[in-house]
Amino acid sequence: MRTFDEYLSALAKMRPNLYMQGEKMGRSDERLAGQLRIIKETYDRANDPEWEDLCTATSHLTGEKISRFTHIHQSVDDLLKKQMMTRLLCHRVGGCIMRCMGIDAMNALSVVTYEMDQALGTDTNKNFLKYLRYWQDNDICANCAQTDTKGDRLKRPHEQVDPDLYLRIIESRPDGIVVRGAKIDNTTAPVSDEIIALPTRFMTDKDNEYAVSFGIPADWEGVKMLVRPARQHRRRYLKAPLAEIGDAESFTIFDDVFVPRERVFLDGKGDPRQTPFAGFLALLFAHYHRHSYTGCKPGITEVMTSAAALVSEYNGIENQIHVKDKLSHMLGTAELVFAVGQMSAYRAERSSSGTWIPDEILTNVGRRLAGEEIYNEFKVVADLAGGLCATMPFEEEFFSEETGKLANKYLMRNPKISSENQHKCFRGIENIVASEYMNVIEQIGGLHGGGSPQMETITMMARYDLEPLKNIAKYLFGIEEELPRYERPTVTPRKMLERFREMYSKT
Amino acid sequence: MRTFDEYLSALAKMRPNLYMQGEKMGRSDERLAGQLRIIKETYDRANDPEWEDLCTATSHLTGEKISRFTHIHQSVDDLLKKQMMTRLLCHRVGGCIMRCMGIDAMNALSVVTYEMDQALGTDTNKNFLKYLRYWQDNDICANCAQTDTKGDRLKRPHEQVDPDLYLRIIESRPDGIVVRGAKIDNTTAPVSDEIIALPTRFMTDKDNEYAVSFGIPADWEGVKMLVRPARQHRRRYLKAPLAEIGDAESFTIFDDVFVPRERVFLDGKGDPRQTPFAGFLALLFAHYHRHSYTGCKPGITEVMTSAAALVSEYNGIENQIHVKDKLSHMLGTAELVFAVGQMSAYRAERSSSGTWIPDEILTNVGRRLAGEEIYNEFKVVADLAGGLCATMPFEEEFFSEETGKLANKYLMRNPKISSENQHKCFRGIENIVASEYMNVIEQIGGLHGGGSPQMETITMMARYDLEPLKNIAKYLFGIEEELPRYERPTVTPRKMLERFREMYSKT
Amino acid sequence: MRTFDEYLSALAKMRPNLYMQGEKMGRSDERLAGQLRIIKETYDRANDPEWEDLCTATSHLTGEKISRFTHIHQSVDDLLKKQMMTRLLCHRVGGCIMRCMGIDAMNALSVVTYEMDQALGTDTNKNFLKYLRYWQDNDICANCAQTDTKGDRLKRPHEQVDPDLYLRIIESRPDGIVVRGAKIDNTTAPVSDEIIALPTRFMTDKDNEYAVSFGIPADWEGVKMLVRPARQHRRRYLKAPLAEIGDAESFTIFDDVFVPRERVFLDGKGDPRQTPFAGFLALLFAHYHRHSYTGCKPGITEVMTSAAALVSEYNGIENQIHVKDKLSHMLGTAELVFAVGQMSAYRAERSSSGTWIPDEILTNVGRRLAGEEIYNEFKVVADLAGGLCATMPFEEEFFSEETGKLANKYLMRNPKISSENQHKCFRGIENIVASEYMNVIEQIGGLHGGGSPQMETITMMARYDLEPLKNIAKYLFGIEEELPRYERPTVTPRKMLERFREMYSKT
Amino acid sequence: MRTFDEYLSALAKMRPNLYMQGEKMGRSDERLAGQLRIIKETYDRANDPEWEDLCTATSHLTGEKISRFTHIHQSVDDLLKKQMMTRLLCHRVGGCIMRCMGIDAMNALSVVTYEMDQALGTDTNKNFLKYLRYWQDNDICANCAQTDTKGDRLKRPHEQVDPDLYLRIIESRPDGIVVRGAKIDNTTAPVSDEIIALPTRFMTDKDNEYAVSFGIPADWEGVKMLVRPARQHRRRYLKAPLAEIGDAESFTIFDDVFVPRERVFLDGKGDPRQTPFAGFLALLFAHYHRHSYTGCKPGITEVMTSAAALVSEYNGIENQIHVKDKLSHMLGTAELVFAVGQMSAYRAERSSSGTWIPDEILTNVGRRLAGEEIYNEFKVVADLAGGLCATMPFEEEFFSEETGKLANKYLMRNPKISSENQHKCFRGIENIVASEYMNVIEQIGGLHGGGSPQMETITMMARYDLEPLKNIAKYLFGIEEELPRYERPTVTPRKMLERFREMYSKT
Repeated sequence: MRTFDEYLSALAKMRPNLYMQGEKMGRSDERLAGQLRIIKETYDRANDPEWEDLCTATSHLTGEKISRFTHIHQSVDDLLKKQMMTRLLCHRVGGCIMRCMGIDAMNALSVVTYEMDQALGTDTNKNFLKYLRYWQDNDICANCAQTDTKGDRLKRPHEQVDPDLYLRIIESRPDGIVVRGAKIDNTTAPVSDEIIALPTRFMTDKDNEYAVSFGIPADWEGVKMLVRPARQHRRRYLKAPLAEIGDAESFTIFDDVFVPRERVFLDGKGDPRQTPFAGFLALLFAHYHRHSYTGCKPGITEVMTSAAALVSEYNGIENQIHVKDKLSHMLGTAELVFAVGQMSAYRAERSSSGTWIPDEILTNVGRRLAGEEIYNEFKVVADLAGGLCATMPFEEEFFSEETGKLANKYLMRNPKISSENQHKCFRGIENIVASEYMNVIEQIGGLHGGGSPQMETITMMARYDLEPLKNIAKYLFGIEEELPRYERPTVTPRKMLERFREMYSKT
Repeated sequence: MRTFDEYLSALAKMRPNLYMQGEKMGRSDERLAGQLRIIKETYDRANDPEWEDLCTATSHLTGEKISRFTHIHQSVDDLLKKQMMTRLLCHRVGGCIMRCMGIDAMNALSVVTYEMDQALGTDTNKNFLKYLRYWQDNDICANCAQTDTKGDRLKRPHEQVDPDLYLRIIESRPDGIVVRGAKIDNTTAPVSDEIIALPTRFMTDKDNEYAVSFGIPADWEGVKMLVRPARQHRRRYLKAPLAEIGDAESFTIFDDVFVPRERVFLDGKGDPRQTPFAGFLALLFAHYHRHSYTGCKPGITEVMTSAAALVSEYNGIENQIHVKDKLSHMLGTAELVFAVGQMSAYRAERSSSGTWIPDEILTNVGRRLAGEEIYNEFKVVADLAGGLCATMPFEEEFFSEETGKLANKYLMRNPKISSENQHKCFRGIENIVASEYMNVIEQIGGLHGGGSPQMETITMMARYDLEPLKNIAKYLFGIEEELPRYERPTVTPRKMLERFREMYSKT
Repeated sequence: MRTFDEYLSALAKMRPNLYMQGEKMGRSDERLAGQLRIIKETYDRANDPEWEDLCTATSHLTGEKISRFTHIHQSVDDLLKKQMMTRLLCHRVGGCIMRCMGIDAMNALSVVTYEMDQALGTDTNKNFLKYLRYWQDNDICANCAQTDTKGDRLKRPHEQVDPDLYLRIIESRPDGIVVRGAKIDNTTAPVSDEIIALPTRFMTDKDNEYAVSFGIPADWEGVKMLVRPARQHRRRYLKAPLAEIGDAESFTIFDDVFVPRERVFLDGKGDPRQTPFAGFLALLFAHYHRHSYTGCKPGITEVMTSAAALVSEYNGIENQIHVKDKLSHMLGTAELVFAVGQMSAYRAERSSSGTWIPDEILTNVGRRLAGEEIYNEFKVVADLAGGLCATMPFEEEFFSEETGKLANKYLMRNPKISSENQHKCFRGIENIVASEYMNVIEQIGGLHGGGSPQMETITMMARYDLEPLKNIAKYLFGIEEELPRYERPTVTPRKMLERFREMYSKT
Repeated sequence: MRTFDEYLSALAKMRPNLYMQGEKMGRSDERLAGQLRIIKETYDRANDPEWEDLCTATSHLTGEKISRFTHIHQSVDDLLKKQMMTRLLCHRVGGCIMRCMGIDAMNALSVVTYEMDQALGTDTNKNFLKYLRYWQDNDICANCAQTDTKGDRLKRPHEQVDPDLYLRIIESRPDGIVVRGAKIDNTTAPVSDEIIALPTRFMTDKDNEYAVSFGIPADWEGVKMLVRPARQHRRRYLKAPLAEIGDAESFTIFDDVFVPRERVFLDGKGDPRQTPFAGFLALLFAHYHRHSYTGCKPGITEVMTSAAALVSEYNGIENQIHVKDKLSHMLGTAELVFAVGQMSAYRAERSSSGTWIPDEILTNVGRRLAGEEIYNEFKVVADLAGGLCATMPFEEEFFSEETGKLANKYLMRNPKISSENQHKCFRGIENIVASEYMNVIEQIGGLHGGGSPQMETITMMARYDLEPLKNIAKYLFGIEEELPRYERPTVTPRKMLERFREMYSKT
């Protein structure tokens, strides 16, 4: 495992291919500091003995201790620990921990490359395992680039006016592929070692060249990242962990990029039989990522509830019934989402590849609820804080000679709390509900990340067999004589794999 | 274990103490048939080899096979099986299975009598175990009578103008107690072998005589039940399980009833030290009962979703997006509530008495969500069925010579479904959304049973420690230097017991 | 204007064509008493000097004083008074006043027959005005039969396997038409003088024979009504207006019914040019009916809030914050729906026929909100009443010698309220949330009547021009230079008529 | 009326008393440009002949044409025009128009000073009218400073540890008063000519010195403003009105400020009889301000819906059912809130002072709904836009030589829309959901401005007489014989004044 400093050193050596505000920027640019502060937590905790049980795992390849962010789930317990680690790390940074994407993609690849090899006799899983070994040995931080720019949303990839609006293989040759296109919403990509590209949807047999997946270094030839950072308001006086965080998004352009064969995981142009696995991979990545959300989203909801509870105490309204109701509703969401994610792990099944897959219905139900509630949670924090959270003077006014004394005098609320702590509290609330970072990235990311609630409904209904469910009504209504005993009319992970296999065997 | 017929024979022998519409009624009265049909399911399935794993258990007293409805939870697995049994039996009757109350009360008594004996040196648990043995040997069906009439809700029991508005001990003597008062909302009581009375709230030291619990035969001297049955619309032609069910509620009056000492489980008048255990017992029964709701309510939601899906198919609108969204929302509720109940079992802890107690936060969060959603679920069924579910002519019009052919002709919708099945479907929907039974008892019972959402919020917030939660914000805001690693700021079952013990040791 | 007794006498003379539970029934059958009690209110109040201003109007045909339930809206004030009358009459019966359908249909016909005559040179409006004169002279109570049985909902009328699943003209001849089919959800039809049939949707030129409208006596040759009554629980001791009401629904079969030409208002078979007016008529009836809902639904919400407030007082919880919040939410719905209906009247426009048409957007927005909230309102009443509302013993138990004294003793709550009034209150609450009538008919009728929320969204979006709305964003985003001043991007009633005219002129 | 330039010139001459980031700033500071851009709209439109009917009025003092932002409502029509003007101006700036506060305060003062003079024989209204004349002659832009810092929210003003936590009169003398304290959330104050201070709550007779109101120039001796500006992201290439706006909040400190007597409108220290009028004034200002919200909030909802509809078109998803549902829900909110505000004007009543007061129930119901929905509206815009709205590269990347072509290529969606317009659209969306301004100020301001939904519920329930409402249930339940005809159990504006008068006459 690396230390954070070793990771930073590696970043420093990378080829500059980041662009911001019309200029190239290096990876040590100060505007990436917020994003780096978050990633730091993932390295520091893995190297912290108190967190070893959660943040490290034992590689099934080497038996070595590795960061859990590079681990392929070998058991229910791995899934449970991943979920808990994610939640507790979110508490420590106050928002998304941002390193789950990469390993979620790796878990999906571990299953899909194996299944594809079994079905088609290809040799991709071997390449994947080699790549995984590289990951584990080097404690890799990676972005998963899934979302294509998508052009006209009513048309399939091959139907677009410009064929490049979904990432595609423009050439497939024995030593590798050449890809062209762009991926967006690539959180963390500017500070990642590697980028894993995955399809964004199911592909038809006219979309062969869009069935593509690979992993490459983030500074690879032809990769250009247009960087969009977001940060909390800078602080001059009141230092606080929450004020240090931020993110860096990338709009990543693949400007005719060559990918060597051993780093290619899906190539529908070279081998059109692989095309149906595009959708499978898209879906399975989304699935692992949504399961990660059952860890992070409760964590973030708890951060918000914690803030709401604290400011209620400082405002002296902690025991009002409407305050308790609101806090209780938020805690209820956190508990529901986390518990349903845990049960999703308890109901996980082992795929042939050895990787464990959590339950899809539960994972999607949990992720959906979290997405539906996120805006309301911001509303409650603002509600209980009062309007001041959006209108508070800047820090300097509380420290300047001319206005400091007066500003602090009038900020006083609960006389048991020092003026400084009241100031810190409202500054923190400001960082949550009135900043450029949380109020934007966590709000919109909480809605869209891993797929918006609409997407979870679609996935969920695809995994739920309504016919056996209808048997209940048919029996009760006297339409059928018997009601077969049946615990749950849903498609289990193993059954899902079987269905995919059947589907592929037909194409 | 008894058969349903043996149970019926026992009922037939009971002293008539039921009153309805101004007259005494026997327990074989036809108006109780709907309630009996539900109870039948619990006996039939326990005697059905296919259901043996769920519906029976092994007595920890005798090692004998017993009905799970008479079993004290000895493990996480017992809690999981109880929950699953409840859910699957609800599918078979189309609503509440109605026999959980009794055993939920017994589980609460198994813990509280033990704890009380440990604290006070009393001898109550021995009596309880003897009573439990009687239960298991005779496969008892029981009502738990908890809700007092409560009079003026702003006053405590001893403050009421009429001291009898909460059930109380008017005399405590060595051989037993004499109680006076009434309990309401006593579902199933008219067809129960036994009635277990429990306090409805915490009691202060001025409420000693209201700290009372006992179990007596339902036809005991002095017990008078004012019966209120509810049934589905009677059917003449189209037989269907859903049309057979109903319930029978009792407003139970204890008209100076003597209870022998070995059937007394709490006697605050005779021994005021027992008074604080009243609240503990009230709460623990509610807790077990709410956990049962995480089984039954998802089952009932699935019944409703099943009906909604079937009528959507028959109406030909099954694939409309708004239909899928509505079904998916309902299924999401069922999945969330059930999963959170399962996790509550996984997080259960063993009390000193040996009985396992599920997690309170999760149980209350699940029960609350179910209660909040129940009316919406009826709305969706009516919405997807269309107005006809409330206005459909009676059965006879579909079978009479003069109108039958026309009525059936115009009922036709999906041409692939026979007119008879369309009729059966709409009759079934009528039973759900436009009857005297489900549309009343399941709607209101789904809201209030085990405590309304307000009560779950109160319990939940009592078990959630906001102070450790606030540490997250304090750390993030820079108010505290460190964030202790802490998985969940809630009171676990074992910790709950400890807190009660501390509390009692002080009084 | 008639008295209620005159109306009853007229009913008594009608040909028996009602069928219930396999037998013919007369219109004086006791099972129709609940429905008649509601209609009674409309006659009594029109003859009551205190209600003259609201419940009567001046005929624009004769200048005579007529019942407002037979009046064609000649002004904004007429629309406002219709709305207020509807709301206040609902207060008096505790639910739907049930006589609005007929006059809503008449208003729609007054516009559409006029517009059709203008467009096609037909002579229908003359017939309509003659029919209206008959209505006003005889103070007619009528049902509007709109909803067809509709068969497979994915197919148009002419595509159904059985062509009769929408009401159709099987023969059009100079002296009249012969119609076949059925209409459902015909509230009040069993006690109506007349039935007005209207199309249920837009018709294409393949659906000519389904473009049909007419008015006939309810006992006309060939008309068969399959009757479904619903009533509150019968009372023996505690008389109360709310206990007297009920409804009677009809599934009305038109078994090859001849309609004389002067009673035909639309005949697409005889004159296919009339076909496009089917949809216009369907829509305009729905529109007037939804505007009536902006009167009745607030009235019913106020009935429910009134009950919820009263039982809260009796339970002693009136001043709890959560109680106030719930009452306030309900009152908010009533105020919003009524106010928006009033504004819809203020924004009404006069059609060429002289009839005033309220604003569609506002009417649909109001009706939709009411439909969305109705189930929640029942939930709140049950919530604040407590479980007893569903489990209370029957009346007799409170009056019998054996149990009466005890039953009354234990019903006591607020000591300032007599036991009898507490009994009356809970009986009333039972009539609302736990009966066969309100809990069914008002719940489902409140959802579906006039069209479910989905239908209002469709209508509303059809009347809202998104393009001018988008100009706001185009201007603000710098896409367009100027933002034209534009008060409201919606289609006004007059503009709606113009659009219809353009449409018809093209077909 | 002034032009915007004249207003700017006046600002330029003011004494510098603004503080930001530790330094004094002038009123022409670039950081106030966003706020000024909004105010500009109010001057420009008043001087624009096309807007004359809405944006100007005739002074009832002088008969001169004045800006409507300086007008006292003399009729229902004035209220309707104020509301419409507010809404349409919001369309033009994309958010809050920010000049309503001042005139809302003036309207409240016009009533309260008159009422007070009538009750106490004081002479305040004369001073007020003189001040109003100054306003109208000079086309004043003013802030209303209402919100005190409030200290411990469980204590009244006089109970605070520091007596200055509510603004108070430390000295009352014949020529004026000296005040000390601070007011917060003072939007627009940094660019206002005048500041009007008002109490924030009812005051008891121990709070006499907190019963204070006055109007002073914003640069008056002793006034110190701690300024907090918020702006949209700066644009370099794509100019757009939405990108220009912003606000400036002030935390305003009254550091022992002397106010001359003719500018004092309430002085409870000098004349304790005036104290009860503090609450009246607080309430009436809130009332006028909430009525203004029934204009601005629908306008802002329309801006958001407009943006959501446009980005849906550009994304090609405009005709999806879930998109229409979401847009329709937002439009429904806008229509409900605006219509209810209009009806509130139609039900307005004239006070003795001549000023018209809109209906309180309706105004509060409308404002509450708007506040409840605001966060959801931001959610819908982000939902329909997709994640890119939060992650889009900066403008420069689309214009630089190295990345511009690629960035524009991959932004393409609907091929009928130019890349530049797509860019403008997403930039605009970014300004709404992912900026420092709208996503903060409009979100939190939309929740709290004029009082959060909780406050509207309280006001609304204070104006709603539950007793006459309960008569409905009493009649229906048989508890009372008669139901008096009663249109609406609410307190009308005139009745409200009477109640206040009664209250004051008792103190």
